[in-house]
Amino acid sequence: MTLAYGVLSGGGVCARVDGVVVDLRGVDPLFDAPSLNALMAAGPEAWRQARERVDEGRELGEAGELGDTALGMPFEVADYVDFYSSLHHATNLGRMFRPDAEPLLPNWRHLPVGYHGRAGTVVPSGTAVQRPAGQHPGGMFGPTARLDIELEAGFVIGTPSVMGEPVPVERALDHVFGMVLVNDWSARDIQAWEYQPLGPFLGKSFATSVSRWVVPLDELRDRRVPGEPQDPAPLPYLAEDPWAYDVALEIELNGTVIARSNTRHLYWSIAQQIAHLTVNGASLRTGDLLATGTISGPEPEERGSLIELSWNGEEPIELPDGSTRTFLEDGDEVVLRGEPLGEVRGRISPALLAPNDRH
Amino acid sequence: MTLAYGVLSGGGVCARVDGVVVDLRGVDPLFDAPSLNALMAAGPEAWRQARERVDEGRELGEAGELGDTALGMPFEVADYVDFYSSLHHATNLGRMFRPDAEPLLPNWRHLPVGYHGRAGTVVPSGTAVQRPAGQHPGGMFGPTARLDIELEAGFVIGTPSVMGEPVPVERALDHVFGMVLVNDWSARDIQAWEYQPLGPFLGKSFATSVSRWVVPLDELRDRRVPGEPQDPAPLPYLAEDPWAYDVALEIELNGTVIARSNTRHLYWSIAQQIAHLTVNGASLRTGDLLATGTISGPEPEERGSLIELSWNGEEPIELPDGSTRTFLEDGDEVVLRGEPLGEVRGRISPALLAPNDRH
Repeated sequence: MTLAYGVLSGGGVCARVDGVVVDLRGVDPLFDAPSLNALMAAGPEAWRQARERVDEGRELGEAGELGDTALGMPFEVADYVDFYSSLHHATNLGRMFRPDAEPLLPNWRHLPVGYHGRAGTVVPSGTAVQRPAGQHPGGMFGPTARLDIELEAGFVIGTPSVMGEPVPVERALDHVFGMVLVNDWSARDIQAWEYQPLGPFLGKSFATSVSRWVVPLDELRDRRVPGEPQDPAPLPYLAEDPWAYDVALEIELNGTVIARSNTRHLYWSIAQQIAHLTVNGASLRTGDLLATGTISGPEPEERGSLIELSWNGEEPIELPDGSTRTFLEDGDEVVLRGEPLGEVRGRISPALLAPNDRH
Repeated sequence: MTLAYGVLSGGGVCARVDGVVVDLRGVDPLFDAPSLNALMAAGPEAWRQARERVDEGRELGEAGELGDTALGMPFEVADYVDFYSSLHHATNLGRMFRPDAEPLLPNWRHLPVGYHGRAGTVVPSGTAVQRPAGQHPGGMFGPTARLDIELEAGFVIGTPSVMGEPVPVERALDHVFGMVLVNDWSARDIQAWEYQPLGPFLGKSFATSVSRWVVPLDELRDRRVPGEPQDPAPLPYLAEDPWAYDVALEIELNGTVIARSNTRHLYWSIAQQIAHLTVNGASLRTGDLLATGTISGPEPEERGSLIELSWNGEEPIELPDGSTRTFLEDGDEVVLRGEPLGEVRGRISPALLAPNDRH
């Protein structure tokens, strides 16, 4: 069977078993909880036992028929970290913004670059995404004119680690409960003006969407494939045989698939991300969400963001209705998909300006 | 009376009233809690009522005699945001790292620059700070050789805001429960290598220390003073008469005061920081910690970090025992102080390298 866990909109854990939703309330105290965090914190042995009790649940119907409203936010986010682990994505942005220089910055092949995002605005699939307003280059103010998506996967931490004790790369996966799909919505004009020298802030913090199902990492074991060689060889604390998950992904915009990618295009593995995140002694907490960064493949049609697909707005994307897009318009709906993760969906609603902004 | 709230090490709220610690357990259900978050979430009217019931508590003794171990972490951190709101600090770093250019980046006078830090490694005063290891410029590995402090204040959010609704600058303070002292420990070599293009990450995430007492914002009302003029005039969503809090601060290193500063040197106010943080629709949650960034004054002896005080290590600081410091050594103890906030203290313990790093 293929298993995923979710949380019913009124609380209580449910499972998706081969496409059928099963209510697990009453089966085990770990399932009678407002989020997956209790189960996630219980650790790998409890996760194995939980899996064996899934058939004791009560069938609720087909997952596709129940829809998003039957489910709530699957887990409480502790810290949210977003990495930048796709070589093709980082290279594309480098070519776009630093055309006369080496596309990759000097640190990129030495460590998984990452930053902390806003945990409080991580929302479940289906939540409307309001177009953010803010400062654009030069200090002009208005709704973003460059609203973008980022096709990402995310890993959710189950077992916490101890502050001061780095997690070795070969034990990193013991801490991971499961995988989700992530849309890291981005306002490129806001981001461009604010990000020096401390990184992205309001250009990202307005919303990050995650799928409502979390797929336990054990379910993905058969999808491990060899990864591209890493050059230079990573430092010992990051060293492992290169590998990645083979999960095919697609971006659908208003019903049309505009790009296809795959998590196998990631340069840094989740184990390396965790080893890096903790090498300075920082601890992991149950509910930490570690996203991969935009997952782009080597081909033009495998780019995981609109800024790449439209090449910084210079090459509009054509849709079947005859319209074109560089960035998102109000009313647009984006769905990211990838089996067995499911989907993460969001529709753009218009900007709401504060009273002080109506000038 | 001058009031601050804390949490007893076994749970339960206490107050510090004119230097005396008062046990508030049993006085009100909001005080019978593992952290201040229940009280913080209850809002301004509940805060006023709580203040009136403080004299119903049981005296435990002088705050100075009880010491750090009597108290726990005062609040659960939701998101941790660190701003960069001192003009003198930003100017000093600009002069140091971009000597041939304008010290301030183009965005600095237009918005309060900030980024998200790691909420999971915010620790209370007195917690030992382990020297972090990590990658240094060029991809070399080892314990940081440039371990620094940052003298900051922090504001703790009480009343949450609604996602999608920017908080107007004139109502921003309604959301703030109180103020703490913050030491934003920093590893400058790790930060220098990692921070392009997504900002500080492991150079900051190993530990951030906060004082164990939270001073309600109402207690600081008499300390509001006019601020320096802001040029250019901020956009309407940030517009207010410039003001700051007058709270004198000092940095003590191994028993010697090495710098004095004041929160009045901040260019951006906490109200402006909140208006900016939420202008894109991002919400505030109870427990959000908004730190100011390093607070440096205009004079050399008013610099709030060692990298400024030693001018990037070129001008060692002389201590009374005849030793000098550019950055921190193992065993050093740093205490940040400022009335009525109290202190935030931390001693450096040696790096612990992961098994994979012992090469």
